[in-house]
Amino acid sequence: MSDDASTTATGSDTATGPDTAATPDAASGAQEVLAAARAAKDAQPALVRLTRQDKDALLTAMADALVADAATIVAANAEDLERADAAGMDPALRDRLALDADRVAAIAQQLRDAAALPDPVGEVVRGGVLANGLELRQVRVPLGVVGMIYEARPNVTVDAAGLALKSGNAVVLRGGSAAISSNTALIACLRGVLAQRGLPEDLVVGIDRWGREGADVLMRARGLVDVLIPRGGAGLIRRVVENSIVPVIETGTGNTHILIDATADLDQALEIIANAKTQRIGVCNALETLLVHEAAAVEALPRVAARLAESGVTLHADEQAREILAQAGTTASVVPATEEDWDTEYLSLDLAVRVVPDVEAAIAHIRAHSSGHTESILTHDIASQRAFLAGVDSAVVMVNASTRFSDGGEFGFGAEIGISTQKLHARGPMGLPEMTTTTWHVIGDGHVRP
Amino acid sequence: MSDDASTTATGSDTATGPDTAATPDAASGAQEVLAAARAAKDAQPALVRLTRQDKDALLTAMADALVADAATIVAANAEDLERADAAGMDPALRDRLALDADRVAAIAQQLRDAAALPDPVGEVVRGGVLANGLELRQVRVPLGVVGMIYEARPNVTVDAAGLALKSGNAVVLRGGSAAISSNTALIACLRGVLAQRGLPEDLVVGIDRWGREGADVLMRARGLVDVLIPRGGAGLIRRVVENSIVPVIETGTGNTHILIDATADLDQALEIIANAKTQRIGVCNALETLLVHEAAAVEALPRVAARLAESGVTLHADEQAREILAQAGTTASVVPATEEDWDTEYLSLDLAVRVVPDVEAAIAHIRAHSSGHTESILTHDIASQRAFLAGVDSAVVMVNASTRFSDGGEFGFGAEIGISTQKLHARGPMGLPEMTTTTWHVIGDGHVRP
Repeated sequence: MSDDASTTATGSDTATGPDTAATPDAASGAQEVLAAARAAKDAQPALVRLTRQDKDALLTAMADALVADAATIVAANAEDLERADAAGMDPALRDRLALDADRVAAIAQQLRDAAALPDPVGEVVRGGVLANGLELRQVRVPLGVVGMIYEARPNVTVDAAGLALKSGNAVVLRGGSAAISSNTALIACLRGVLAQRGLPEDLVVGIDRWGREGADVLMRARGLVDVLIPRGGAGLIRRVVENSIVPVIETGTGNTHILIDATADLDQALEIIANAKTQRIGVCNALETLLVHEAAAVEALPRVAARLAESGVTLHADEQAREILAQAGTTASVVPATEEDWDTEYLSLDLAVRVVPDVEAAIAHIRAHSSGHTESILTHDIASQRAFLAGVDSAVVMVNASTRFSDGGEFGFGAEIGISTQKLHARGPMGLPEMTTTTWHVIGDGHVRP
Repeated sequence: MSDDASTTATGSDTATGPDTAATPDAASGAQEVLAAARAAKDAQPALVRLTRQDKDALLTAMADALVADAATIVAANAEDLERADAAGMDPALRDRLALDADRVAAIAQQLRDAAALPDPVGEVVRGGVLANGLELRQVRVPLGVVGMIYEARPNVTVDAAGLALKSGNAVVLRGGSAAISSNTALIACLRGVLAQRGLPEDLVVGIDRWGREGADVLMRARGLVDVLIPRGGAGLIRRVVENSIVPVIETGTGNTHILIDATADLDQALEIIANAKTQRIGVCNALETLLVHEAAAVEALPRVAARLAESGVTLHADEQAREILAQAGTTASVVPATEEDWDTEYLSLDLAVRVVPDVEAAIAHIRAHSSGHTESILTHDIASQRAFLAGVDSAVVMVNASTRFSDGGEFGFGAEIGISTQKLHARGPMGLPEMTTTTWHVIGDGHVRP
């Protein structure tokens, strides 16, 4: 999963910022945002005429321009940082906002990486000839206009624009207002390259200047914007999902489970659980709840607790787990689990722990509490594997592997737009093909329906 | 396209009916609808354990039960008809509502047809082994709970339930209140079969008794209902799209275009246009706007007008077309086109007609006015074909064929849930695979992420 899909809601200025100050005239602001979205829609057909070579050359030229403009971009970023410092921004958020020449080069590299990916547009998904001779082909085509609503991370601006253009889409960008100066400079650079190459600048449109209202208008722009993809914390995503009448791809929240089954290899289990919980804690594919089959609990739990204690993990354990740990004389940090723990994506050195009587009970727990992102069973038993794969209703269901593999890069997609936790259109890690739709081409020779 | 996806909004009691009289206590009504949706969600895993054989046997048993219960169902329908007559229902709508033993048998046949279709669940869409040895498989699984909001056509109740069950989904049904007695009897029959076979009755849930409020609650039931599919007129679909926070698959509206290109075979063109406009007028794949390349207009328009006049079609023609027709001394019914005509889905013996200077102008007209359903170019020129297929952004784009072929049955899908005019998840005619989502199965052997 991409880093930005894994942040907490803390930095969600999109949801909480004082952006309305920027829009004294609400009605005209809304009109201007709609005009910007319409301009993107009108510009998009220009991309349809480009070959893959043309698109790759465009992205490479954009990468070159970002590197050439690095000083301007870093200077704009300094304005954002000045405001951030005045507002006492959290150091982790400030670090995500900050740019220097190296980071601008890394952002440019994202565009070169996108250029290197296969072009999904034009792929024939299905095809054949009907009994009456009609030729039928289902072909990948761009979605049209993709709207991105995200938080104050300037790299997302360029990454989103690059992936959208590569897949033939125009893009409307609404970043966090804390990054407005950086985003404005980045977008100006990208638009400059479009203009130089004789393409409509409005293939990449920023609407940060209309603040939070811009996001609200974008969510109502059905017919102009084909899909909205929120990238950021849970609060941002929920707000978009609940308010948008434009179709949304929901990404990110990962209340992720591992089940230690009765037949799990405990040496493997320790490595997998430590990897899933502690390799990187603030990400959506990190482990949040450990379920333990009661037949394995007495042996497994003390070893898990000892292993995770090395990394300072606090266990939020149910009564049965606490009893087992107490009898084993654990020195790990253990607190009683509450009902709330089962539904919490900690994104911290905390882990909910529950003992379950069997695989079915584990599946029921997961169905009740999971966010539908990723779950893994550790087992050597074929029946348990089969039941878990069939019974768990999540985007990614694993056997004997760390949940940290739930990632577009790890899946070999090259790029990742996010991890969809919804069921329509895309589910799980999304690559470039998920930025397209399909159309049916039907070729006849005077065919009429009898 | 299915018949019910093609009706006008006239019969949309869902949007206009006095249903609130049925819900004296709004808060408790909402709770009961949510409880019904939750019951469907809790029941759905029972379907996951069924094989295709089990599901087909279930549908066949349901078909048998409908035939056996035909007298009860027809008696319930008589209550609906009595109320319809008292309210002075439009005869066409009354006909769609009415059931007799033959129509019940036809409804039962829909279930046998669904049983005969391939089961999409379990299909491996993609798969392979990653460099690190992880096995990766993308597998089709049921969506979960499908909500259907439709109008007063009892056959939809059974058709929707059958297709949902076949694809492993529980279904929550909200039919038109004018059909409430019929739907109640049909649903009771289907639930009876579920109970007989030891399956949860709540795999099929009706919420008609909560009237319009039930539909409103369903649209807010995100997390309980995985997808809403409105089937009916434009008004109903718009209301669902604009109010639902549950993901919606938008179906149906067809403002459909044909372009007679400069090189069209005019004999073929006449047959195709007559077929598309007049074979069946009240359906979403019927022709609504004819565009004519100006190089073909003088020869083509008088012949088209004469041919369509045989069926009583009125042409709503732009100035250039009217001049050509007048000079040719047409006796066809011709009125001036207004801006509104370009955006109208007539579903009647009316046709908008416009002369365009070239293929690009036709594409621009279609992009501006089409509902994105189906468009066809009549041409012998490869460049025109290529430009039209690439430039038109609709669910189905045809060459030298009648738009009436835009249909799940014609495409060979066996069943059709509707024709999606949106871009996410499904586009164009939807068959059983579009009633599923996918999940990623990842099989490892102690894999941890480096």
